[in-house]
Amino acid sequence: MGRVTARRPVVRVREGAVSTRPDTLVTEEPLEIRLGGRPLAVTMRTPGDDFALATGFLVSEGVVAAAEDVAGISYCGDARDEDGARTYNTVDVRLAPHLPAPDLAGLERNVYTTSSCGLCGKASLDAVRTTAHWELDRARPHGLGTALLAGLPDRLRAAQRVFDRTGGLHAAALFSATGELLDVREDVGRHNAVDKVVGRAAQEGALPLRDALLMVSGRASFELAQKAVMAGIPVLAAVSAPSSLAVDLAEEAGLTLVGFLRGSSMNIYAGAHRLTLPTASAEAVSSAGPAAGAG
Amino acid sequence: MGRVTARRPVVRVREGAVSTRPDTLVTEEPLEIRLGGRPLAVTMRTPGDDFALATGFLVSEGVVAAAEDVAGISYCGDARDEDGARTYNTVDVRLAPHLPAPDLAGLERNVYTTSSCGLCGKASLDAVRTTAHWELDRARPHGLGTALLAGLPDRLRAAQRVFDRTGGLHAAALFSATGELLDVREDVGRHNAVDKVVGRAAQEGALPLRDALLMVSGRASFELAQKAVMAGIPVLAAVSAPSSLAVDLAEEAGLTLVGFLRGSSMNIYAGAHRLTLPTASAEAVSSAGPAAGAG
Repeated sequence: MGRVTARRPVVRVREGAVSTRPDTLVTEEPLEIRLGGRPLAVTMRTPGDDFALATGFLVSEGVVAAAEDVAGISYCGDARDEDGARTYNTVDVRLAPHLPAPDLAGLERNVYTTSSCGLCGKASLDAVRTTAHWELDRARPHGLGTALLAGLPDRLRAAQRVFDRTGGLHAAALFSATGELLDVREDVGRHNAVDKVVGRAAQEGALPLRDALLMVSGRASFELAQKAVMAGIPVLAAVSAPSSLAVDLAEEAGLTLVGFLRGSSMNIYAGAHRLTLPTASAEAVSSAGPAAGAG
Repeated sequence: MGRVTARRPVVRVREGAVSTRPDTLVTEEPLEIRLGGRPLAVTMRTPGDDFALATGFLVSEGVVAAAEDVAGISYCGDARDEDGARTYNTVDVRLAPHLPAPDLAGLERNVYTTSSCGLCGKASLDAVRTTAHWELDRARPHGLGTALLAGLPDRLRAAQRVFDRTGGLHAAALFSATGELLDVREDVGRHNAVDKVVGRAAQEGALPLRDALLMVSGRASFELAQKAVMAGIPVLAAVSAPSSLAVDLAEEAGLTLVGFLRGSSMNIYAGAHRLTLPTASAEAVSSAGPAAGAG
């Protein structure tokens, strides 16, 4: 679509000196997702991969789980700006006839409000469990070693083409258990980046992603952990901090959650049994020298 | 409320050594905002300042603009978890009788879908203009110098008490035109942090914030620029990149938008006339030596 970045003039101040020049910004535009013609949600996203984004959004919300659940997706021809030009900012998803009618009222207010119990963290976890199409297999080892994990942030960053030009994009990537980069998407919204990689996998019939790892460039919120669980992804790794509710969901759903993944350092908040850890304990290394206490 | 952070065990890997210890995480829990008893929105937030968050959310959506527009706010006593305990995760806002009935259906799908024209960036800008309660005064100089601006990120970071322990929080702060820190709030969601500072100002009858500057710890999205405009704040400064639509809104609404504010470097994307810039041009400084080309 060629709409991923935009140029704007900017006044730069550097070391007390002022100059004016064009700058490259990440494009942000609204996308309305419709279900069978009915408006369901609006997200502010970076244009591109819109059908994948809509598909991944519906996977995250528990509406679809397989490529054959979607009968078709198209841009709405009647969505036009005031000059009469098509905006390509409204997509309509038509569900396959075999699916039960979704609870649109509940979907409009997000999955974690559909629980019957009072709104709380526990209710949010319950809502994920009741809408998930599959469970994560806790007994299935993933085989990922920490040395392999340590290399992923650099590889994610290297694959972020647009970030280098704009500094304004979140990224989400799927890696295989052997560290192969399967897909990477960038978006102004971190949840959209995850929906795009999940949606593309869904379109290819690859769900659940039982052998994949989801890597995100920022923090691990409940919403991102939810998206991993709903896509059947057993490992979520984030460059920055997780939230309490993301850890609670990981514990309950059997998701391996890694945070602060930076160089050879990482924190494992849940599901450590899936990973191959170094055999040295910190205490043993500490006794060998003061350098081990760093970090 | 004492629920801002939570402790969880974590497996730490550092330099090839493994240890298990407790870690402090930022708390994330859902908050349902009701309007006159009717559920309006759910946001995943860090507990605390919930009434301010709800008030700021309604300011951002154009529903309220002054302290007297809100007749009362309370936690819903009937919102309980499965053990029967009050969750303090549902707040109900009662509007003053003089306000017209809000368009709840439009609000549930966000302000930028209420425009009559096809969904596009332009429609998003129009929606802000038509719902804003006041215009930013383009002729009013703010008097902020770049030297003062350059000191704000360090002061924001110094005021972030919870971030230091968890690394998981976004921050929003209000500064006066002379650089006085007026308020700072932290939240797992950047939009919530802004709603909290705006909401507290609204509760104190301080809107529009004609002489304030809003500083945010991360990027400047359309949504954050919208919140600044709706609160009547003339200057938005962000540590990281703005999006294209944030810049477009700033241009249209007369908002001064500063991005990549780091040390003495910054980019001014809109409204540079409000700031006192250094008098040296980059070209003049460049001719004085090679160091000026950095950055």
